Amino acid sequence: MSSHITSPTWDTFFAERTKWIKSSIIRELLKFTQQPEVISFAGGLPAPELFPIEAIKKASVELLEKEGQKMLQYGPTEGYPLLNEQISIYMKKMGVSCSVQEILPTSGSQQALDLVGKIFINEGDTIFVSKPTYLGALQAFNSYGPKYVGSLMDDDGLIPEEVEKVLMLHKPKFMYVISTFHNPAGVTMPEDRRKKLVELAEKYDTFIIEDDPYSRLRFEGNEIPPIAAYSRERVIYLGTFSKVLAPGFRLGWIVAPKEVIAKLVQAKQGTDLHTSTYVQYLAAKLCAQDLIETHLDKIKSVYRQRRNLMLDSMDKYFPKVGFHWTKPQGGLFLWVIMPEKIDSVKLLEKAVENKVAFVPGNAFYPDPDEGRNTMRLNFSNMKEELIVEGIRRLGELLKREA
Amino acid sequence: MSSHITSPTWDTFFAERTKWIKSSIIRELLKFTQQPEVISFAGGLPAPELFPIEAIKKASVELLEKEGQKMLQYGPTEGYPLLNEQISIYMKKMGVSCSVQEILPTSGSQQALDLVGKIFINEGDTIFVSKPTYLGALQAFNSYGPKYVGSLMDDDGLIPEEVEKVLMLHKPKFMYVISTFHNPAGVTMPEDRRKKLVELAEKYDTFIIEDDPYSRLRFEGNEIPPIAAYSRERVIYLGTFSKVLAPGFRLGWIVAPKEVIAKLVQAKQGTDLHTSTYVQYLAAKLCAQDLIETHLDKIKSVYRQRRNLMLDSMDKYFPKVGFHWTKPQGGLFLWVIMPEKIDSVKLLEKAVENKVAFVPGNAFYPDPDEGRNTMRLNFSNMKEELIVEGIRRLGELLKREA
Repeated sequence: MSSHITSPTWDTFFAERTKWIKSSIIRELLKFTQQPEVISFAGGLPAPELFPIEAIKKASVELLEKEGQKMLQYGPTEGYPLLNEQISIYMKKMGVSCSVQEILPTSGSQQALDLVGKIFINEGDTIFVSKPTYLGALQAFNSYGPKYVGSLMDDDGLIPEEVEKVLMLHKPKFMYVISTFHNPAGVTMPEDRRKKLVELAEKYDTFIIEDDPYSRLRFEGNEIPPIAAYSRERVIYLGTFSKVLAPGFRLGWIVAPKEVIAKLVQAKQGTDLHTSTYVQYLAAKLCAQDLIETHLDKIKSVYRQRRNLMLDSMDKYFPKVGFHWTKPQGGLFLWVIMPEKIDSVKLLEKAVENKVAFVPGNAFYPDPDEGRNTMRLNFSNMKEELIVEGIRRLGELLKREA
Repeated sequence: MSSHITSPTWDTFFAERTKWIKSSIIRELLKFTQQPEVISFAGGLPAPELFPIEAIKKASVELLEKEGQKMLQYGPTEGYPLLNEQISIYMKKMGVSCSVQEILPTSGSQQALDLVGKIFINEGDTIFVSKPTYLGALQAFNSYGPKYVGSLMDDDGLIPEEVEKVLMLHKPKFMYVISTFHNPAGVTMPEDRRKKLVELAEKYDTFIIEDDPYSRLRFEGNEIPPIAAYSRERVIYLGTFSKVLAPGFRLGWIVAPKEVIAKLVQAKQGTDLHTSTYVQYLAAKLCAQDLIETHLDKIKSVYRQRRNLMLDSMDKYFPKVGFHWTKPQGGLFLWVIMPEKIDSVKLLEKAVENKVAFVPGNAFYPDPDEGRNTMRLNFSNMKEELIVEGIRRLGELLKREA
């Protein structure tokens, strides 16, 4: 019927920003590493065998029976009020006071990153990030065309004195910070550094986007409140149910001052109208049952064991000279710094040949020429016996390369 | 703790594009019209009493029992393969052939609009729309800063000769078209106009974004295949489960050539990683059970009855001279053109005082000074006896104003 219609040259139609949007290396890699015989420490997945399936099933049935017409209908962009209420209670437990009007549920915290980029970033704006930083944040922000400045971290995360040098010089619009169990670095900022960061935000008239998917996954040491507990004025907080409940829901949230929430709501309307009512009802009910707290107890004990096993195996199988790795007290990841001569991208090719995988660290830098001698290892998603075997394989390879 | 920290002047931080992003008038209005005593024809909601709650409950339980670990985990941006397969089958029924790789599930078709904007629109690009057009599309596109050109429609939708004049003069990057049961106008383009539109796309080297949420809701007349049935080369098709299943899922899809899908996937990764795995599994299972077809039979018969009742009541209660309204053969909406002297925004204030509501038509124009003598009425979401009473109230008001 349309035999005379030819395809356009699509390249001529794509917007400029598509040049800045690149596919995530991690997600591309995951495809290769999903062969069943590869032991992959590459993903950032929770352990699916721990998902609270029974509780979710029970809640779904009860909700559909009692509130089916509402949970299947359109809802307000601002969020299902009972969910906002539950999030407010949850934040309070972590030491952050916020009203339901200062909360916006999002379609995963990836959407929170996109919305933050949308309302704040003009092309050419300067954004501060840690080096390394979360890859998904770079992906979200990139489509709005910012420039990045950053500073390195130590085993306690961002170093305020180093951050200040960058703020003074570059006056970034905001600082994107992963305060606790950093992805990818596994490090956590102590309280004094958090307070200092807030003071710097005030001093240089900027603000902090605090991305906090992992802080509830602490299996060792004392809890440290999010940066948002020290300042609601200069901190926009991003939370998510992906790591404490289930990522398949795609449900996160933003805590921000009301005038910022108002702008985010407008942006979200045009982006997806609202987050799935169905999923919001489910999460609200599970929160009201305190499911997250009991679920956390369960997953933390497993993740602790897996981290221990990974660290023990690394002690046993990894070369020592020129190697350093972080010892996270929670979260999903640890970070390995290797001798300069090792290029982790090339290393990955060899690793996959040896049936083991990780994420090359340069994926987490705005400039992929940085961090080439680093890698991220995930310990949450691999059964115990495979952690030992995978680290053994990787250790053998590293001994040959080092 | 942070008593010395002051709030920033947020206005100085918001990106330029936030000036173009405005809150939807409809969504703001809905808040006012949700008082229980107001009979509102303003929304675009499906009838919640018809949602297939039992089937959804059964499918949820079965899926959680058999595939809980997968449906609660992260998934590929490209979509849950079995859902893409079901969408491909569904498209085939409508006369559109596409492979699973030419389909991308989205978080509602609102997200499809945002992603299309993201990959195609540079600030200042010219976009063709019908006048009126879908408000949500304007909202999605606005954040990318396009200029709009458009042409009026008659009772058969866009008029190819009129469209050609605009294409010739303005060379828009793409045409955004709602081909069947137009929102807000309720009109449907016949086959010859569809074919002609494809030819124009070829002649002026542009392409069509076909937004098609309603075509399966035909309760009268012969089915007309989507424009995508006449050309896959020059048409990007947007579909949704919101009107044929449940909007609370927030699940839609895009059908496009592979190289466009590849760009959309990259954009979607940064936007929300992927659409809820949970919801995708549910929809795939319900499609496989052919639930949509049986559900459609049910809702079409109710919507037909409600449309009939609305048209009959309008004949009875509305003034005739200077008034014209569309008689849609399906969908959710009809469109009223009133005498020039009536301003529908002012009319709405009086209508709400009289406990009845609609959407002023100018909300559907890029320039809100246009279409001020028009309004959109929804017939799907109101019980029969209230349709009669609501139209009676509105008719009385119109007789006073006309």
